[in-house]
Amino acid sequence: MDTIILIGYMAGTLTTVSFLPQVIRSWKTKSTHDISFAMLALFGLGMLLWAIYGFWIESLPIILANVITFGLIIVLLAMKVRYK
Amino acid sequence: MDTIILIGYMAGTLTTVSFLPQVIRSWKTKSTHDISFAMLALFGLGMLLWAIYGFWIESLPIILANVITFGLIIVLLAMKVRYK
Repeated sequence: MDTIILIGYMAGTLTTVSFLPQVIRSWKTKSTHDISFAMLALFGLGMLLWAIYGFWIESLPIILANVITFGLIIVLLAMKVRYK
Repeated sequence: MDTIILIGYMAGTLTTVSFLPQVIRSWKTKSTHDISFAMLALFGLGMLLWAIYGFWIESLPIILANVITFGLIIVLLAMKVRYK
């Protein structure tokens, strides 16, 4: 595998995995007060566009990372609405 | 400008701009309790790798978006440490 493809996958893994501790923390504390709703909404929309960009330039790391991250952002948005 | 380059810039603008309301909220409330430190640290490291990936594949939207977002994540990390 090319070095740069590996770096792309590492980057995608890190930015995707990074939202897991946030989901776990919010789930445990049932508190999302300090998290900005606008941040989650804008970031989620951005993830969708990055995924489209990834499909277009045929970059699998970009596609995978953004589709999975989008899912985690949806979970966080749901908790933000549920826990206030 | 190609449509896909435009989508890349829109995606980059959204995911970058999304951290601004978070920085503003944390600045105003002086509270970052609900934000996961691990999320910020992993995400920041991921941004660095994405920037390297962007340089490598010569994608200006990826470079710009990730360098600026990295800066905002550093600000949030500093507030997370400062405000606890």
